[in-house]
Amino acid sequence: MVPHLVTALKGPLLELERRFLEATPQIERWFRLEWQERTPPFYCSTDLRNAGFKLAPVDTNLFPGGFNNLSEQVLPLAIQAAMVAVDKYCPEARNLLVIAEDRLEQLDYRQNLLWLAKVLRQTGLEVRIGSLDPALEQSQRIDLADGQMLVVEPVRRHGRRIVVDEFNPCTVLLNDDLSQGVPQVLRNAHEQTVLPPLHASWSVRRKSTHFGAYREVARRFAKAFQIDPWLIDPGFSSCGQVDFTSRDGEDCLIAGVESVLRQMRSKYREYKVTEKPFVIIKADAGTRGMGVLSVRSADDVRNLSAAQRELMAVGEDGLPVTEVIVQEGVPTFETINDAVAEPVVYMIDRYVVGGFYRVHAERGPNENLNAPGMRFVPLPFASSCNLPDAQALPEEAANRFYAYGVVARLALLAASIELERTDPDQSLYG
Amino acid sequence: MVPHLVTALKGPLLELERRFLEATPQIERWFRLEWQERTPPFYCSTDLRNAGFKLAPVDTNLFPGGFNNLSEQVLPLAIQAAMVAVDKYCPEARNLLVIAEDRLEQLDYRQNLLWLAKVLRQTGLEVRIGSLDPALEQSQRIDLADGQMLVVEPVRRHGRRIVVDEFNPCTVLLNDDLSQGVPQVLRNAHEQTVLPPLHASWSVRRKSTHFGAYREVARRFAKAFQIDPWLIDPGFSSCGQVDFTSRDGEDCLIAGVESVLRQMRSKYREYKVTEKPFVIIKADAGTRGMGVLSVRSADDVRNLSAAQRELMAVGEDGLPVTEVIVQEGVPTFETINDAVAEPVVYMIDRYVVGGFYRVHAERGPNENLNAPGMRFVPLPFASSCNLPDAQALPEEAANRFYAYGVVARLALLAASIELERTDPDQSLYG
Repeated sequence: MVPHLVTALKGPLLELERRFLEATPQIERWFRLEWQERTPPFYCSTDLRNAGFKLAPVDTNLFPGGFNNLSEQVLPLAIQAAMVAVDKYCPEARNLLVIAEDRLEQLDYRQNLLWLAKVLRQTGLEVRIGSLDPALEQSQRIDLADGQMLVVEPVRRHGRRIVVDEFNPCTVLLNDDLSQGVPQVLRNAHEQTVLPPLHASWSVRRKSTHFGAYREVARRFAKAFQIDPWLIDPGFSSCGQVDFTSRDGEDCLIAGVESVLRQMRSKYREYKVTEKPFVIIKADAGTRGMGVLSVRSADDVRNLSAAQRELMAVGEDGLPVTEVIVQEGVPTFETINDAVAEPVVYMIDRYVVGGFYRVHAERGPNENLNAPGMRFVPLPFASSCNLPDAQALPEEAANRFYAYGVVARLALLAASIELERTDPDQSLYG
Repeated sequence: MVPHLVTALKGPLLELERRFLEATPQIERWFRLEWQERTPPFYCSTDLRNAGFKLAPVDTNLFPGGFNNLSEQVLPLAIQAAMVAVDKYCPEARNLLVIAEDRLEQLDYRQNLLWLAKVLRQTGLEVRIGSLDPALEQSQRIDLADGQMLVVEPVRRHGRRIVVDEFNPCTVLLNDDLSQGVPQVLRNAHEQTVLPPLHASWSVRRKSTHFGAYREVARRFAKAFQIDPWLIDPGFSSCGQVDFTSRDGEDCLIAGVESVLRQMRSKYREYKVTEKPFVIIKADAGTRGMGVLSVRSADDVRNLSAAQRELMAVGEDGLPVTEVIVQEGVPTFETINDAVAEPVVYMIDRYVVGGFYRVHAERGPNENLNAPGMRFVPLPFASSCNLPDAQALPEEAANRFYAYGVVARLALLAASIELERTDPDQSLYG
């Protein structure tokens, strides 16, 4: 199923989708050559926004937690992609430890872990699941309603190695973004392969670095396929020192908001977009939707209420937020039964394995859909993203998903460049 | 859909399937390590026989021509596997030429070519189709009933390069097994990647070399997983100089038949199989089902009729047959609506991408189903072969297909060893 695009202004997007369709072999070759130079992250998910006039990634997650939302049909594809990833990162591996995020009370997250364990087992690995929760002192068996069960074990240190119980893994797969910092138990474990690397965690990662790399990738791609890079690239600006409470550094934020809006207005005129531009202000580090603000002018920033300031000043993890990113707001014009929908594309290694729509009944098209406490309904993509149908119209499901897969893979490329640049061990990249 | 197993004696097979299910992570790791040492053929299909008491490959084809018989569902999986293969063999490639077999008049073969072109295009290649038919002087457009069309072009030489028209491919993918020999137009084209290599063609290849390598692989696998290798390995013997017309070399053939039958009788006793053993005599080179003989005793060989001798003496390609292989007959005990069925597993690179049943209404369980002129009905496997269901019974579809995928991949490994050993340039293997 493909959501309905409610905007009348889908000319530029249809044109873009048509370009992608026509140029499919060239696009796939372009990616093939790019990947000769780069190593993709083990896994990745990208939130996209389809505005009708623009299709762009707005968030790239290196610790994806919603694999369970993918269609059952894509399991074989995911297994095959995971085989490629394991081959690349840990070809000899026998045991793999998945480190879970601290939200095991959520049924959907438990199912995500089961999904990962099932897929990784098929690549030839014994898989166990560990938790960093200091309150967990011994193995815990969690029964799921459908008869399946999950055993979660406290992650410990055995000398230089990360272990659970007697299980000594060659590979540790993080499914926790470590936004509160890298815990001692994971540090200096040089004998084991930790995936993604620790510098991919939100204790190091910055959205601005990612979108800076994305900008380069988008420009290179746009040049190769003669499209306007703006059609796939969300504008942004970042500020390193903002104190929302004392207003220190507010000038930088205001300048950023104005600069992003200025560029948007110019592009909106060019493409005859009549929407009112908005920008999103969010923490430069961290994935959760806390402290995400949608503003339409510099005055909106000046006039933030005390409550809004308080919300912005502290991340969900309780840590103060001083580094922020101002990102072009890309409205989502896809709806399902009048509810706003946003595509999320899942990748393993360099392959798109599927995706789903995050459908949100209580939010508007200009709002952040990944909001804490808010429910969303996942709607798996009806088909894989690697099989466009040249005979069909550009807006048909297989082709829409193909376009999503192309843009998501640009974000994946950006993530690989970002991880190279931020790697503390630069000797790896000649 | 899974065909019905009509034999009462499926104990050993169920036991084998159970072993495969339990040991899945170890089996997948075993393959992962094996592939670190080997390069898989670009593509491959394997005919299996499921006897209820034994599951074994009986033929391994390095120029598979029935991709169109696979389920639509496996297309994304095939594309992803083909991406891996292209990455390995010809990462820079822009253009690929598929060389078609000389049976373009067959609708199903045309569809096989369309399938290949579609999948390869998605890996980032411009694909064109060439023919070696000397009667083809210019490009020919073939319209298919369903509105699709195919353009086939005469393969020519442009200096050191194999070309069609102005199209100068980096890579040439053979879909013709060249059983009549390697034509001049393909020789000494060292600037281009030819896949599979010319020594994979039936002008060089021998079934006995393949099954010799398979025997080693099967023994290694059986040792690792503590099973009797006979359960997955068809016995064989080969004779290099048999003249069916003059009876020169008949002694070798008779000795081979007796030796294979002797071993079968002993194993049949061990597993309490009450079937009467039979062996298959076929040309050691060549894939087509011409001159395939099913015999139950050495006397059957001595008493061959003049007509049978004539049939055996010449291959379908008109070349004399003097090298023969005597292979253990593995009866197929799968039936669909009382018609005999035989699984065929398709692989790209090291991945199983799907399979189908060759269903034959007019043949018995002890006969060769891949027979010229005989019609068969392909029945695509209902699920991929990489996703067993540990909760389900060993004989359920997903698990049966997984077992097929395991045995087929053993044959794939054997093919890669065979191609290494027969490579004229041994300097590649240190």
